[in-house]
Formats: sequence, C-alpha cells, structure tokens
Amino acid sequence: MATIEETLTAPEPVVMEHPHHTKLVIMAWSGDLDKIWPTFILGTTGAAMGMETTIFFTFWGLFPLVRNDVHITGENWMQKMMSMMNRGGTEHLGLSKMNFAGMGPAMMKKLAEEHKVASPNELLEVARDLGVHLVPCQMTMDLLGLTKADLIDGLEEPAGATTALLEAQDAVTLFI
Amino acid sequence: MATIEETLTAPEPVVMEHPHHTKLVIMAWSGDLDKIWPTFILGTTGAAMGMETTIFFTFWGLFPLVRNDVHITGENWMQKMMSMMNRGGTEHLGLSKMNFAGMGPAMMKKLAEEHKVASPNELLEVARDLGVHLVPCQMTMDLLGLTKADLIDGLEEPAGATTALLEAQDAVTLFI
Amino acid sequence: MATIEETLTAPEPVVMEHPHHTKLVIMAWSGDLDKIWPTFILGTTGAAMGMETTIFFTFWGLFPLVRNDVHITGENWMQKMMSMMNRGGTEHLGLSKMNFAGMGPAMMKKLAEEHKVASPNELLEVARDLGVHLVPCQMTMDLLGLTKADLIDGLEEPAGATTALLEAQDAVTLFI
Repeated sequence: MATIEETLTAPEPVVMEHPHHTKLVIMAWSGDLDKIWPTFILGTTGAAMGMETTIFFTFWGLFPLVRNDVHITGENWMQKMMSMMNRGGTEHLGLSKMNFAGMGPAMMKKLAEEHKVASPNELLEVARDLGVHLVPCQMTMDLLGLTKADLIDGLEEPAGATTALLEAQDAVTLFI
Repeated sequence: MATIEETLTAPEPVVMEHPHHTKLVIMAWSGDLDKIWPTFILGTTGAAMGMETTIFFTFWGLFPLVRNDVHITGENWMQKMMSMMNRGGTEHLGLSKMNFAGMGPAMMKKLAEEHKVASPNELLEVARDLGVHLVPCQMTMDLLGLTKADLIDGLEEPAGATTALLEAQDAVTLFI
Repeated sequence: MATIEETLTAPEPVVMEHPHHTKLVIMAWSGDLDKIWPTFILGTTGAAMGMETTIFFTFWGLFPLVRNDVHITGENWMQKMMSMMNRGGTEHLGLSKMNFAGMGPAMMKKLAEEHKVASPNELLEVARDLGVHLVPCQMTMDLLGLTKADLIDGLEEPAGATTALLEAQDAVTLFI
C-alpha cells in the first residue's frame, strides 16, 4: 500500500470538473465594426471583472490598429491594392452587413452614440486604461509590410500563433 | 518541514492538465441561418449530453428571438431602417452566403427537410424542451429599442457581457 | 474530525483556477480562404507545440476537404445548385471579403507566396504530417450527399456534434 507521502506526490488521476479560468484570450480576426464591438466589449468587461485579458489582433483584425493617419503602402502593387480595399484605422471600419455606401457604419455609430454604447476608439482607449494586453500578429504585419511605427501606441510586442495558443491554454478563449 | 496537515491545506501549486468542462456556453452573435444551425445543433447536442448549456443571443443573433408577428419599430428613423434590413423572427433568416433573392435559404431549408435536419423553429423548441438557457443580450435590446414583450416566450431574463463571461469561466465556450 | 485518509478521498471542493488545456479543438465551419488560414495555422502550430489537435470540418468548412477532381453531384437539383455555388477542394476557395471576380484569392495567394506563408494545400499536408486529426462532419456529408470516397485521403472517420463536444470538454476550443 502506498504511504501518505507517496499518495500526495503521485500523479493526480482525478478529472476536475468545473475548473475556473480567470484569464480571457480573444483572437480578433475580423476588422468589421460589428465584430470590433463584441471584441472590445467582452475584452473590457473581462478586464473590469479582474480577468487577465489579452486580445490578439490578426488578419483583418489588425487593420483597426493601424494609425488613422497612415496609409498602408507595401513594396508591391498587391499590398497597395489590399490597402485600398482595407484602409487601416478605426475611422474606416466597415460593417460585415448593411455596408451600403458606408451608410451602415454611420448609422450604427449614431445609434450607439444615442444609446451610450462606446465607439471603437473609446473602447480601444478604455481597453488600454484597464490593462488589456493588445497584441498585434507578427505574421499579418509581415504579410502587409507593416512595422510597429505604422500601428497605434500602447500595444504589446507583436507575437505569433504559438504565443496566442500558450495564453489560451488556461483561459476562456474566443475566436471573433 | 511542513506537516501533512499544512501540506493538505496549502495552496495547490499543481497545474492541472486535462480539466473537464461539463458546461457549454455559446455566444450567438450572428443571425444568419447557416450560423443559427450550428448554434442550435451544438446547443441541443450539449444539453442532450447532460452539459448545462446557455446560449447568449447578442447583436445580429438577437433577431431570431424576435416574435415572427412583431415588426421592430424604434423611436427614430435609424432603428426603423435597421428593422427593415433585418426583420426579426426565425421565418426571415438570411444566409451569410448564397443569399440570392432569398433563393439560398429556401434551398437550404428544403435540403434540410429532405434530409431530416431540424429547422430553426424546431431547434428553438427542442432547445427549450431540453432546458437550454436562452438569454437575450440586454445591450442589444436597448440598442434596438426592444422589450421582453417583443421576444418569443421561454427566454431567461436579459443579461450582459459580465454574466456571459462569468458563465464562460468554467465552460466550453464558443463564439458563433 | 476527518482522518487524513478520509480527507484524501473526499470530493475536492476547491475551485481550480488556471487549469491548463493541452488539447486543441477547432470547429472549422467556414470554407473561405481567409478562415482556412487561421484554422490550419493555429492547428499546425498547436500540434507542433505538442497539443493533441483535432479539426472538425463542418458546413462550409467541409468543402476544402472535397477532392479537387470531384464535382459534387447529389441526387437532386438542389444539391447540384449548391455544388455549383461551392465547388469543393482547396483550389476553389473563395475569400469572405474582396472576392471580386476571383481577384481577391489570387492576390492573397500570391502575397502569401512572396512572404513564405504556406498555401492551404501545403497546410493540409503539414497538418496530416504533424498528426492533426482531421474529422469531417457526418451531418454535412449527409446533407450534401457526399461519401468518404469524395473526400481527400488522410481523414479520420466522420463524426458528429457529440464527438466534437466531448473532445472540447478538456481542450482549448475555437469556432472558426
């Protein structure tokens, strides 16, 4: 029979049910206004609740982090075309639906103002103030020819999928 | 050296691997027919497996919960326009792809009928019967000027992001 | 007072914080090129990190698993129409945005080539080599009239929502 000391140091065979995650990881893949909202509303709510919160901005999700005064201009015509189609910065966010000549986003922003729902710029600022870790995706930056100087202030060092998955291992994780 | 009693009551330094979540939380953000299906199929399957299941309906995801006989009419022209673009209720669901003059959804529904895949209305009913918690998002209701009377029966009290994240902390969580 | 033996065998009332998941489950619902990338980049990264990784391909996500030389032809006109709109195989992937006359995907693929980001076909092969479990959704196969012979090699047995949720219970789970 095992001694108590052996039992205490033996590998734990118990399957834990209801383990709690007190971290929040959001993989922000979409740059659409209507996806930016849940990203920041959940991110800031998590941080305000005391959850250690990290948002990884990848693919289209990186565009809102590009400075509003920066025009993405890569080395080749393809990057230039992509930049035309997807101007960076929170001022230029489209809406995944209802994007008729830009009417949709304007309408949503006005609706939000009247109902006191924060704008993306405000949410970005609140997120930084609450200590949310805002991490740009290195691979997306490489793909678009962006450097840290092209992105807004207050971001963490760029990172990749490995970092994101390591963070996710003990967190509530959402792909938005 | 620590006594056995001290060891037993000391904070647990062991990192638990393979902890099991027996709860399921779905954040249903999309109102498209092809996203409603995985929401309800996963939700009802989870409940049938004995997982305590909660679906939070937010943003576009709230529209399928609006009564089919209700026309969303807010106080201002913007809410009226949104309501025109997104009629509530499960009868009017679009499809995120192939929505050519409404042909796509009709085609999918017929395909589903022939192959015995349940319709959204049936899935909603099954979900309620299985005890799935169906929670409308309070912020979205405020944004659209909706009250509980505008929504279908059998829903839980409206709640916000804090409640959703608290539920998510010990659950399998999907953002759909 | 409880004996040490009783204490050791008593149900564990402690809420575990920071439990670690060393498994990764991806529910790949979208067949768009720009969603296939994060699916495979995260899937292969997870596997390379030693996480036991499973990707469930469901709904639109099943299409990239259809052989490039297979034309989906169901028993009825509806399946034929769907197959026209969504040709299977990794050669025909669209992009959820910027899909202007097919220019978008071609542009993205070229961008990726120049920047050494792997193509979907390469990622699929790498995933298989790394031991990622690639599981097609049985219900979607039934809906589209597909059999295993219509799908690429190297896949696991088709499975449904129950299997996916069982896997998800002790994993980092992403719905993409």
